Amino acid sequence: MSGSSMGRLFTVTSFGESHGPGIGCVVDGCPPGLALTEADIQAELDRRKPGTSRHVTQRREPDTVEILSGVYEGKTTGTPIALLIRNTDQRSKDYGNIAETFRPGHADYCYWHKYGTRDPRGGGRSSARETAVRVAAGAIAKKWLSEKYGIVIRGHMTQIGEVQMPFKGWEHVGGNPFFSADPDIVPRLEEYMDSIRKSLDSIGARLRVVADNVPVGWGEPVFDRLDADIAYAMMSINAVKGVEIGAGFGCVAQRGSEHGDELTPQGFASNHAGGVLGGISTGQQIDVSIAIKPTSSIAQPRRSINKQGEAITMETHGRHDPCVGIRATPIAEAMLALVLIDHALRHRAQCGDVRVETPRIAGHIG
Amino acid sequence: MSGSSMGRLFTVTSFGESHGPGIGCVVDGCPPGLALTEADIQAELDRRKPGTSRHVTQRREPDTVEILSGVYEGKTTGTPIALLIRNTDQRSKDYGNIAETFRPGHADYCYWHKYGTRDPRGGGRSSARETAVRVAAGAIAKKWLSEKYGIVIRGHMTQIGEVQMPFKGWEHVGGNPFFSADPDIVPRLEEYMDSIRKSLDSIGARLRVVADNVPVGWGEPVFDRLDADIAYAMMSINAVKGVEIGAGFGCVAQRGSEHGDELTPQGFASNHAGGVLGGISTGQQIDVSIAIKPTSSIAQPRRSINKQGEAITMETHGRHDPCVGIRATPIAEAMLALVLIDHALRHRAQCGDVRVETPRIAGHIG
Amino acid sequence: MSGSSMGRLFTVTSFGESHGPGIGCVVDGCPPGLALTEADIQAELDRRKPGTSRHVTQRREPDTVEILSGVYEGKTTGTPIALLIRNTDQRSKDYGNIAETFRPGHADYCYWHKYGTRDPRGGGRSSARETAVRVAAGAIAKKWLSEKYGIVIRGHMTQIGEVQMPFKGWEHVGGNPFFSADPDIVPRLEEYMDSIRKSLDSIGARLRVVADNVPVGWGEPVFDRLDADIAYAMMSINAVKGVEIGAGFGCVAQRGSEHGDELTPQGFASNHAGGVLGGISTGQQIDVSIAIKPTSSIAQPRRSINKQGEAITMETHGRHDPCVGIRATPIAEAMLALVLIDHALRHRAQCGDVRVETPRIAGHIG
Amino acid sequence: MSGSSMGRLFTVTSFGESHGPGIGCVVDGCPPGLALTEADIQAELDRRKPGTSRHVTQRREPDTVEILSGVYEGKTTGTPIALLIRNTDQRSKDYGNIAETFRPGHADYCYWHKYGTRDPRGGGRSSARETAVRVAAGAIAKKWLSEKYGIVIRGHMTQIGEVQMPFKGWEHVGGNPFFSADPDIVPRLEEYMDSIRKSLDSIGARLRVVADNVPVGWGEPVFDRLDADIAYAMMSINAVKGVEIGAGFGCVAQRGSEHGDELTPQGFASNHAGGVLGGISTGQQIDVSIAIKPTSSIAQPRRSINKQGEAITMETHGRHDPCVGIRATPIAEAMLALVLIDHALRHRAQCGDVRVETPRIAGHIG
Repeated sequence: MSGSSMGRLFTVTSFGESHGPGIGCVVDGCPPGLALTEADIQAELDRRKPGTSRHVTQRREPDTVEILSGVYEGKTTGTPIALLIRNTDQRSKDYGNIAETFRPGHADYCYWHKYGTRDPRGGGRSSARETAVRVAAGAIAKKWLSEKYGIVIRGHMTQIGEVQMPFKGWEHVGGNPFFSADPDIVPRLEEYMDSIRKSLDSIGARLRVVADNVPVGWGEPVFDRLDADIAYAMMSINAVKGVEIGAGFGCVAQRGSEHGDELTPQGFASNHAGGVLGGISTGQQIDVSIAIKPTSSIAQPRRSINKQGEAITMETHGRHDPCVGIRATPIAEAMLALVLIDHALRHRAQCGDVRVETPRIAGHIG
Repeated sequence: MSGSSMGRLFTVTSFGESHGPGIGCVVDGCPPGLALTEADIQAELDRRKPGTSRHVTQRREPDTVEILSGVYEGKTTGTPIALLIRNTDQRSKDYGNIAETFRPGHADYCYWHKYGTRDPRGGGRSSARETAVRVAAGAIAKKWLSEKYGIVIRGHMTQIGEVQMPFKGWEHVGGNPFFSADPDIVPRLEEYMDSIRKSLDSIGARLRVVADNVPVGWGEPVFDRLDADIAYAMMSINAVKGVEIGAGFGCVAQRGSEHGDELTPQGFASNHAGGVLGGISTGQQIDVSIAIKPTSSIAQPRRSINKQGEAITMETHGRHDPCVGIRATPIAEAMLALVLIDHALRHRAQCGDVRVETPRIAGHIG
Repeated sequence: MSGSSMGRLFTVTSFGESHGPGIGCVVDGCPPGLALTEADIQAELDRRKPGTSRHVTQRREPDTVEILSGVYEGKTTGTPIALLIRNTDQRSKDYGNIAETFRPGHADYCYWHKYGTRDPRGGGRSSARETAVRVAAGAIAKKWLSEKYGIVIRGHMTQIGEVQMPFKGWEHVGGNPFFSADPDIVPRLEEYMDSIRKSLDSIGARLRVVADNVPVGWGEPVFDRLDADIAYAMMSINAVKGVEIGAGFGCVAQRGSEHGDELTPQGFASNHAGGVLGGISTGQQIDVSIAIKPTSSIAQPRRSINKQGEAITMETHGRHDPCVGIRATPIAEAMLALVLIDHALRHRAQCGDVRVETPRIAGHIG
Repeated sequence: MSGSSMGRLFTVTSFGESHGPGIGCVVDGCPPGLALTEADIQAELDRRKPGTSRHVTQRREPDTVEILSGVYEGKTTGTPIALLIRNTDQRSKDYGNIAETFRPGHADYCYWHKYGTRDPRGGGRSSARETAVRVAAGAIAKKWLSEKYGIVIRGHMTQIGEVQMPFKGWEHVGGNPFFSADPDIVPRLEEYMDSIRKSLDSIGARLRVVADNVPVGWGEPVFDRLDADIAYAMMSINAVKGVEIGAGFGCVAQRGSEHGDELTPQGFASNHAGGVLGGISTGQQIDVSIAIKPTSSIAQPRRSINKQGEAITMETHGRHDPCVGIRATPIAEAMLALVLIDHALRHRAQCGDVRVETPRIAGHIG
């Protein structure tokens, strides 16, 4: 059924296959009056773009976005914003083999049994290419959140395979191909990734995305909790297998006396909650981590079956990211932005006129 | 705004506060003809009920459910099923102090700023008591999934604090107060929990919930992925801070050659995917793990602020679970059931008449 | 599937059968801080209540409403408000005959083929009794709209059978059993209704419901238009077969020079639009008319079939309204209130901070 | 907020302005395996196209549709189908005047106060051009309903101004510019329309759209009734001011003994219900009528105000339909198709496996 939309008030409806005419989305519910150009969106798309280093896929996808509606004289009008990215790098190729078999780690087998048909070209709808649409929509959300509330959404990778990537400063993230917040680890990562590639293998990764300046009070108490919607959004990214808020799985071995963030007039004394309590933002930093599985397409021989159910062996050659997690940082940022703007609008709807005299305390005083 | 419903085709709308007249829900979209009595629901509620051992809260909540609609002559009619659980154990108590302050680790501060008002009695809407409603609704989902598809949904705890709890067999889970699948670890857990209690502290936990016999093909490719909806559902449970599917965070250090589950005519060779690829069920076991934070209410003095923003110290005495994770197993099972039934119905809607000749392969041959 | 909810931000989820334990609803999304008691709701329920004159059904349904949640110390908290009306006047009766046959003009035949089962007692889910729930939910919406925006929602009947009922003044509507805005027509209506009853027949009706003081700018341009949502809401009332906005079907023979409402600095010069243009409120009076079919249950012999498909004859005796339209006025008011509050909240979400310098012109200047 | 989607399982999300780059939609939830080409959609678009006779607007809009996704090798894949219609006939023109004033009968004044901005070119989002998108999406729905259930959806005009247009046969509808089911009335209509045009005025209209072969059991009992959804869909069409099902407003003066359709083993004895009882299809013909207001843009001087709130006089010259209702027939058919397919899928979800032995009776036996 229809499952290609996310967001209840800021709704993104995604469409498109990897090798069809194009991919895109309709963003419905954007407030009017936001200054918006294609360049605003393109800047985010370029952060995710393939081909920017030897550690990511060498496919050339210009990913040029066109705004089809909803913007007039450089400002959003409040009507739906349709975005279109034409597919261009469709290498002519024989997909006959792929169409007859099911690639391990991919959704081919699932699609086949679900739909009775599938577009085998480049993964079709399940291609990582689909995430460009999320980045495009997220760019609009990010801009509004920034202009309206001063919210800053940023991400960095924290681990590739066995290599931990410590946080040293946001200023480093844009200066290397690994979205690393530590420049000193980059040489080691280069070497590590080269070895992975040489072994015809791929590797998993972990990244963290945070939002600063989110006001207290966004979210819902029971089902549409802010953290539940974040978990949904993150787990909907291709290849994500785990999501944590704040202390995450670290809370299992924590005592209540350690985990529960104390409040002081100067702010929270810690942020194990990751900025969400009872489904509602606390005003602290929203802090999310995700785990991304290794790329499924590798050049080693792997066992599988064909449409007749017979055993086969297949190798996947081509231009695949050895670590699909590397380019996931802008995607995760976009997803967090999409969740936050939706809850910003929800909050305005129900509680927009609530005023209390209690002072808002700041983020943690650490 | 309205965020108290989950599910698009099997929709549960929850209501109620801990110390108001009652809690309950409306289940809309249940197929007609399912045999259903209050006893079916009560059996699941009793698994979650407090007061069953010294390791959980001693509150007495009979949690007796009444079916208000949607069932005629012992069968569902296809119309909404309303469930009501009256609150009974409402100790008369002065909530004045709690109403004026914000408990650390709780949503009090968030509610106050969001709504400008809150029901302070027993946590109000954010009470763990609300989860009884999920278990009740989940009981209906479980029964339908079992009768229609033979799906079995089960959970067990895998860790309390530092104590790992290995899996030895499903038959052990019901026989101890810890939902442990290993009877031999129980004495150690008893001792461990006693020490936590004596130190006036609380502890986190981790549990696993699985579903067997889920057909291949349930889920959606992009946003309403089966795993995304599971992540949403799990993260919406009180106190959950992390969700994993299959290998979860373990995938970060995995190679593609290890993680990607190979297919053979006899079945998948492994299940690192946890039964979901590209957002769609593979036909393997759905395998989910969650992290539950330590109970926030502890009897140690803690720093906080009052409504005027002034520093205070507070201790929470009373009947609190020292490990809120212990009773979470039936809740997590219920949430998984609610997600699965929703996708079962979605699948019937869009692809109910798809037939392919490719054989379905069985779960992993591991 | 789940079709028992209406409203996207102010969501009402209805449940209950005529002769089950009770009927009710969950109202999710009500802003916090609204003063609300059961008496507020009861006042509206009493306007719809049966048994108030000889021209309506003589069933005694006290329709006493209980607020189960969402209100604390006399004010809404922003969490779901559950309302319960217990069924009391369940005459013990043999429904065996009705269960085996399909009443003409009722949904029995449809339910049977749709669900394969049905609750035959008093019409079950399709009973007019279900509309009490709408009135209860609508009472909350009405109160909020009145307090927040000064919106006044009122209805009166405009025709019963062949008898036209002119508008003379709102002050007359509450003083007669026909919701007539003209007291002079009442004796004729009494006589007319007596003759209908004596002939063992029933009769259709037409009524009008209006909302004053609705701000300009509520509604959506394409699908969720204010008028489309009103049409949905009105047509969802039992027995309604037609809906008009403003000039309604009268517009078919109008010229554009007559129909198009001119604007002047003093206000609109007319209101053929009925307060909605392009799906969005104009700031004029919202003006809606509906047609209500004659009661299907009449004491004359009628042809039908039984579950075996065989021809039968049936007469329906009992306590039926001879004109089901009479009690529909408060229901239509409630439905209009539910649509308006939903759009009020939608508007706050997306455009709550829009400010223009153009003056708002008043309602029409006659 | 987001109000540009309709349908819960077969969801159409519309976008685009009259004079922006293009208009289009995303159709999400279409079952896989439907043979579909651009020509299938184009055929319906051409029925609505302007410029086909002197009685409709002379704008040249080729309305060429491109399928951007969701179709592979001529069949739907089950993933979202995006449709794009580029705008081509954008006469360069000074919209400065229109941008500063509010046209009577149009939504200009509403948009301005709602959004604080608007795209004034050709009506922007509120242009009748938007309805092309509905026709395109409806073409997909129509095709599926026809192939899967043999459902036939057809419409014809029943009145233009004072001229009644009787039904003589479906075969006549395509052969004249008025969608008239009576060829003999056409000369009179030609003359009538010429006189309207000469008087620089416009005129209202009424049309009827029906669906044959709809199975019994589609729809919901309370809120998402089949007739309520139809009313919503029809009232969402530009310029529609009234909707009737079956007897419609004619039921006001009917007795229950006349209106209530009797059942016989050979079928229903009449169809005053219009194919829907209690919100659920009866298996009879679905019968809907709508009223369409006269075109607002006329070449006579009309009073209005400008953005400063000052009185002005305006005339609208240009290429406007003198009777906007004429081209509404394919639009109303499309909307009916969109509602029906959504309920077809809903029915499969919840009740797809219901089987009863009671025979289904046919449509009415006259």
